[in-house]
Amino acid sequence: MTTSARSVFEENAEETVRFSQRVKQITMSAIKQMPILASKVGGCVSLGQGIPSFGTPDFIRDAIIKELSENDAIGKYSIQPGVPALIQALAEDLRRSKKAQIDDPQSELFISCGGMEALAAAMTVIVERGDEVILPTPTYSSHIEQILFAEGVPRFVPALEHDNWRLDIDGFRKAITPKTKAIVLCNPVNPTGAVFPESDMRAIAQLVVEKDIYLILDEAYDFLLYDETPYFSLLSIPELKKHLISCGSFSKRFCMTGWRVGYMLAPPAVIRQGLKVHDAFAICAPTISQYAALAALRATNGKDGQGDRFVAKLIATLQSRRELVCERLDRLAHVFSYTKPKGGYYVFPKYEGEDASVDFAVRILNEARVITIPGGAFGPAGEHHIRISFGGAEAELNESFDRLDRFFKA
Amino acid sequence: MTTSARSVFEENAEETVRFSQRVKQITMSAIKQMPILASKVGGCVSLGQGIPSFGTPDFIRDAIIKELSENDAIGKYSIQPGVPALIQALAEDLRRSKKAQIDDPQSELFISCGGMEALAAAMTVIVERGDEVILPTPTYSSHIEQILFAEGVPRFVPALEHDNWRLDIDGFRKAITPKTKAIVLCNPVNPTGAVFPESDMRAIAQLVVEKDIYLILDEAYDFLLYDETPYFSLLSIPELKKHLISCGSFSKRFCMTGWRVGYMLAPPAVIRQGLKVHDAFAICAPTISQYAALAALRATNGKDGQGDRFVAKLIATLQSRRELVCERLDRLAHVFSYTKPKGGYYVFPKYEGEDASVDFAVRILNEARVITIPGGAFGPAGEHHIRISFGGAEAELNESFDRLDRFFKA
Repeated sequence: MTTSARSVFEENAEETVRFSQRVKQITMSAIKQMPILASKVGGCVSLGQGIPSFGTPDFIRDAIIKELSENDAIGKYSIQPGVPALIQALAEDLRRSKKAQIDDPQSELFISCGGMEALAAAMTVIVERGDEVILPTPTYSSHIEQILFAEGVPRFVPALEHDNWRLDIDGFRKAITPKTKAIVLCNPVNPTGAVFPESDMRAIAQLVVEKDIYLILDEAYDFLLYDETPYFSLLSIPELKKHLISCGSFSKRFCMTGWRVGYMLAPPAVIRQGLKVHDAFAICAPTISQYAALAALRATNGKDGQGDRFVAKLIATLQSRRELVCERLDRLAHVFSYTKPKGGYYVFPKYEGEDASVDFAVRILNEARVITIPGGAFGPAGEHHIRISFGGAEAELNESFDRLDRFFKA
Repeated sequence: MTTSARSVFEENAEETVRFSQRVKQITMSAIKQMPILASKVGGCVSLGQGIPSFGTPDFIRDAIIKELSENDAIGKYSIQPGVPALIQALAEDLRRSKKAQIDDPQSELFISCGGMEALAAAMTVIVERGDEVILPTPTYSSHIEQILFAEGVPRFVPALEHDNWRLDIDGFRKAITPKTKAIVLCNPVNPTGAVFPESDMRAIAQLVVEKDIYLILDEAYDFLLYDETPYFSLLSIPELKKHLISCGSFSKRFCMTGWRVGYMLAPPAVIRQGLKVHDAFAICAPTISQYAALAALRATNGKDGQGDRFVAKLIATLQSRRELVCERLDRLAHVFSYTKPKGGYYVFPKYEGEDASVDFAVRILNEARVITIPGGAFGPAGEHHIRISFGGAEAELNESFDRLDRFFKA
């Protein structure tokens, strides 16, 4: 195969001659490509995309059923930055759960079509053609595509695999040039499951402030921590506030992936620019989903609300799935080595051998009929790894590993 | 005031120094800015944004209440191009209602977060920095912003106001240069209410094919025609198919503006590129909204389905609101002259005097407390006009004109 590390599919250069550079240089994430490939193979089970097996909880669905019966506003555009009550509730939740520094919610937040739209808006606001943006690798693949869409240049700093995938702070410092516009981080890390210690977060914050650049932050999995790992959010650092563009989501915490509702928290000047992009791409986030997110937050008080109980149960279930998957990986120790994830629902094992990760993942797909994601999608240091999701139901996880056992025995 | 023709707000140049050219040169549509300004004035009534007074119909809401109780998939990501059953139903609807030439729905269509996301994806796929894109003026303001976001150069061809705002076909031909990538049209026209005759559509199609460029089409109001005006859709021309990127929406036809669900119909190579943009900005359209759109289409057969009856009633109501607004404008003949709209729910009167449209609309807002949209937002030929929406309830339309009567008497 001659495909790139980031893409599973080959593109016909002939047919793309009419299209813009920005789209030619991006690729649909391998996270979405692998299931499409799988649908052609047939009969596959999945350790692939991050869709957990859980449906949206009943307390959210019931709230929306009530709104659908009573509230005409649910079918109409909301005001463009989002339903004001949701913005207010979100600010309170961020202050409580992350000690976020928010002065005026209505000018520092807007509600987006999922965290993804907020991230894409952040990149297109900040990044000019030729600007450099620094990312650790492995890191979430869509951040790379969004930088390329904005015609920026991704600069990768490999994470320290031998040290629980920690950040190479010194590497970040060395990577900064006069062209650097931003650092983009996710925490906990998709795909490695690393959760960064407070000391590293403070060091990155100091670097960002010192160099007067932006930090674009993706905390989609911040609620999902194991082994009593402490979580330190960059939102709590007052000095960083002017430099921080935080993009968040309701998708994972409340099992609302399909509702497409997230947000951007940023300085008002960034929000004003971001709203222009939001206006040109979406007009507003889906109103019904904004009401669903509001119902989720209203049931969540950090103590023992219905939302808190749901999330606690979700964490417990995913913790047991993590144990299951790690135990199954241990049985394949002749093939895989891995760092046990501290957060999120992914593990990122390294495999023996020199195969490119795309070839490795496609062979597993074709021959074992198991979907995994090639590690090369997550930047250069992702090569020779695959991403495994343990969001799926236990039966599917077990069936997937049964197939992998047979495959690697053969 | 020193604001530009396209923007109501001034921007602080000082604070935008860090941001990309693409966002600095776009503006939030005046359609959204005027209501924000109005919220500061207080006590305003609206002839502004295109939100009709109708809620989403019960047959759609009831279908979603049922799905929420029974279908776990409704809360999860759909596959990225959209729910396959919706793509299939949409293709059938487009074939029936517009004689659309569709061979393989799953490779020629994708479901977007409203028609707006499809349009933004089309522009960013087609337009490279410096490419020219031709639009009539007046035309829908967001098309202009989307071209600028893609760093293209809008070239305007004034419509023929004296001839029912028809297209100046010869003007289009003369505007084409080697840098021209596409023509962008909406039909019926927002803001003028013009509906283009078949002969003009065929002439534009011929020009597009001859010059080997793209035609980006926005038909959000295609179901909404008055006075038995015939509608000719460019989707029916087989020769144009390779050149046509059609962006559509469920928002207006089924009163679903808040659900954010629309689509792109285009050649497979364009769809493949568009899906990359969709992946980077949205992942997928909101799944619950896709099911709502599917419910709408399943009730619509072009004869006498529940959906057809709903749409017929919607058209009849808007027709009577058009009569009301035109009659009220006639009473203000010393201020306004206008062309009676043939489709959509906007009228675009020209006012006496030399005031810039932003100043005119802001004065009406401040002094009469009526929201209208300054015509300059719709390109240069929109100057000295305002856009008036007759989507609102009759009481609000009457109250708005009562205030205008008093204002123009004073």
